[in-house]
Amino acid sequence: MQFQISNELIEKIQFLIETKKDEELKLHLDDIHHADIAEIVTELSQEDAIYLIKLLDSHKTAEAIMELEDSVRERILESLSAKEIANELVEMDTDDAADIINELSVELQQQVISEIDDEQHVEDIVELLRYDEDSAGGLMAKELVKVNENWSVVGCMTEMRAQAENVTRVHSIYVVDDKNRLKGRLSLKDLLTAHNNENIRDIYIPNVDYVTVHTEGEEVARIMRKYDLEAIPVIDEVKRLVGRITIDDIVDFIKDEADKDYQMAAGFSEDIEVDDNVFKQTRARLPWLLIGMFGGLGAASIISGFQGAMLTFPKLLLFVPLIQATAGNVGVQSSAIVVQGLANGTLKGNIIAKRLLKETSLAIVNGLCIAIIVFFISSFGFHTSYTESISIGVALISVILLAAVIGTIIPIVLDKNNIDPAVATGPFITTSNDVFGILTYFLIAKLILGF
Amino acid sequence: MQFQISNELIEKIQFLIETKKDEELKLHLDDIHHADIAEIVTELSQEDAIYLIKLLDSHKTAEAIMELEDSVRERILESLSAKEIANELVEMDTDDAADIINELSVELQQQVISEIDDEQHVEDIVELLRYDEDSAGGLMAKELVKVNENWSVVGCMTEMRAQAENVTRVHSIYVVDDKNRLKGRLSLKDLLTAHNNENIRDIYIPNVDYVTVHTEGEEVARIMRKYDLEAIPVIDEVKRLVGRITIDDIVDFIKDEADKDYQMAAGFSEDIEVDDNVFKQTRARLPWLLIGMFGGLGAASIISGFQGAMLTFPKLLLFVPLIQATAGNVGVQSSAIVVQGLANGTLKGNIIAKRLLKETSLAIVNGLCIAIIVFFISSFGFHTSYTESISIGVALISVILLAAVIGTIIPIVLDKNNIDPAVATGPFITTSNDVFGILTYFLIAKLILGF
Repeated sequence: MQFQISNELIEKIQFLIETKKDEELKLHLDDIHHADIAEIVTELSQEDAIYLIKLLDSHKTAEAIMELEDSVRERILESLSAKEIANELVEMDTDDAADIINELSVELQQQVISEIDDEQHVEDIVELLRYDEDSAGGLMAKELVKVNENWSVVGCMTEMRAQAENVTRVHSIYVVDDKNRLKGRLSLKDLLTAHNNENIRDIYIPNVDYVTVHTEGEEVARIMRKYDLEAIPVIDEVKRLVGRITIDDIVDFIKDEADKDYQMAAGFSEDIEVDDNVFKQTRARLPWLLIGMFGGLGAASIISGFQGAMLTFPKLLLFVPLIQATAGNVGVQSSAIVVQGLANGTLKGNIIAKRLLKETSLAIVNGLCIAIIVFFISSFGFHTSYTESISIGVALISVILLAAVIGTIIPIVLDKNNIDPAVATGPFITTSNDVFGILTYFLIAKLILGF
Repeated sequence: MQFQISNELIEKIQFLIETKKDEELKLHLDDIHHADIAEIVTELSQEDAIYLIKLLDSHKTAEAIMELEDSVRERILESLSAKEIANELVEMDTDDAADIINELSVELQQQVISEIDDEQHVEDIVELLRYDEDSAGGLMAKELVKVNENWSVVGCMTEMRAQAENVTRVHSIYVVDDKNRLKGRLSLKDLLTAHNNENIRDIYIPNVDYVTVHTEGEEVARIMRKYDLEAIPVIDEVKRLVGRITIDDIVDFIKDEADKDYQMAAGFSEDIEVDDNVFKQTRARLPWLLIGMFGGLGAASIISGFQGAMLTFPKLLLFVPLIQATAGNVGVQSSAIVVQGLANGTLKGNIIAKRLLKETSLAIVNGLCIAIIVFFISSFGFHTSYTESISIGVALISVILLAAVIGTIIPIVLDKNNIDPAVATGPFITTSNDVFGILTYFLIAKLILGF
């Protein structure tokens, strides 16, 4: 049943735009979901996309604009006037409108805001703009359904019907006192099963999860996930109900955070999208490549320091890539498990001691396996001497141990200093492990072979 | 306002268990959310945990058991009899009950099922067990609220109140015909604003998103995210409404998938949890380390093949770690962007050509930057000859180009062959880039220096 954008559909729409068959075009797109309209807009040329957006009802285009990729949306908004943008914002929920305004230049922001007619909407949007984008205040919408604890079920139903008209989806119904302070919630199920003559005060659930405007987005996500919430009310410093966050925004937030962590682990220093231009991608990629480069040059210095001895033991140089690869792989494994544990809140208590114990046991087991295999392959495949093979094996175990320890400690230390530990799984840890690994390799060889 | 488990609370509970103050214990835990009960259970000894679970009302413990980490749940279920497990399952939604049964041994499964009294519940669970765990059938619950298109709003309200009693949370209300075939949905908002004398047939929305029992979990997640759905109905082969999937399960699914991808990128060959024992973790980690090891040994063979020439150009060996690190870093960046684009559905059309063009331009820009820096540092810092510096620089650009091409093509090819492309960002791509990178380095040096 899913809608699939076909080339035929795009061609048909392009034809209708070209021949300016506006009514047919509207009819054609009427039944299509705004998320699908967004996909169609992405496929069209800039000119056609703008034509379509100006043609369609802003109730529909507003939601489609929210679904666009950031880069496409930026392009579209640049071609609209302040008044046209304002018309779209009027149709959006306050949180979406605030997000869009945040994407505009400061100058344009003021022009657009002054073009919005609905005063309450402007006031709500301006309030939301005050908060950090990744805080509960920045994630929340002002649209919600609330009832006063002093109302009766019948009176409440009438009032709620009016409020529900302005809310895209009704989640929990929040209960407030005369000063708008959050008292509790009324579940839709309770409402369906309540009798008309009951009072709100007698049927509401006083135990309600909430966050404050300053709660961080990650914490909001953790709470909503833990308690399986579909919406959570947001209160201000004096417990007044000021907004609510819905699960669809949190789903997007979780996905975005996961994508960011994945990119960070892959060595991008800023968020990028697949379509970003070469300049933006270079800005995100080059820093980590340069760190790797300096690591590589560091390794060159180390080898250079041992070059005299390498005339006597030239075969040791063959195994530098093996040492480096192993150190990198172990470091990433050890750090990834810590980073994930920290993110999911499953690491608790004296984690350094617990993790180090587990990681060192693992390093010894894995190190022994690899060292024994390499001992035999180097001896018989590469004809290294007995002592050379021994030093390679011992070096491998030591390097694996060291990499596991570094991989475990760095993310924990970063986390304690309020730096996102996910940074550690990038080329950062690989690079430091490369350098320390190669240094350890030569030092152990020096110790055993005595050069 | 969030509940925080304190050491005092755990000690207090341990004391109450020890002194068998059952009533006080129950009173103490009465107000605590089942997700928090799960956290408390995790902190207790096995014996205390079982005591607590047997003591508390199974309505509460059933939900707490669902929230436990897999390894803790496994331990707890092992200590419960078939009858005791059955008592917990009766209190669970059908999807959760089916998930638990899936975790039991085949023998225990049948014992537990035969101990459940509620025949409808058994029938529903057995139906769910038929589906693949990661398909819509495996993710859905049987609990839902549905109304017949032929009812009136008043009749429907009465019937819905009865149905709602059995459903944890009411999402959309589904509309079916006399043969239970899905016709559409009735939004709660519509219900709140509808007049009692209207007919369902006249107010329901015929346009409803749905999936079939065989739709893959990832596709369900994509659809629910795209259309901001909080629940989606699931139909069988003949369009009969057989269940629904709620967003809280999809949120967990998305988080689990992201965690899996992250682990795969970090080089784990199977899902692990931070608390898994050394044996299980070794099984997940060693395979990738061994692949890396064979890559390292491959690199050793390559260097060995050029060892004669290295007597004349010994300084070339200094830069092997730099070449290797750069190849690895570039490969991971290029593949990560493809893997993420494929997962998010933002890569479309002739992606190989488009991606290769972008990646090769990026490789040339990044490669030039790094090659120029290394040219000067190697010349002045390591006193390499002019031709040696030139070959190192040219090799760097070539290796970066090659790594970008490999990193781009491998995930696309894997995806086309229905293999999860996320595999490609692990040590797999790093290893092949290491080996190809070092080979390229020596071949280019051979060409330029003529050995």
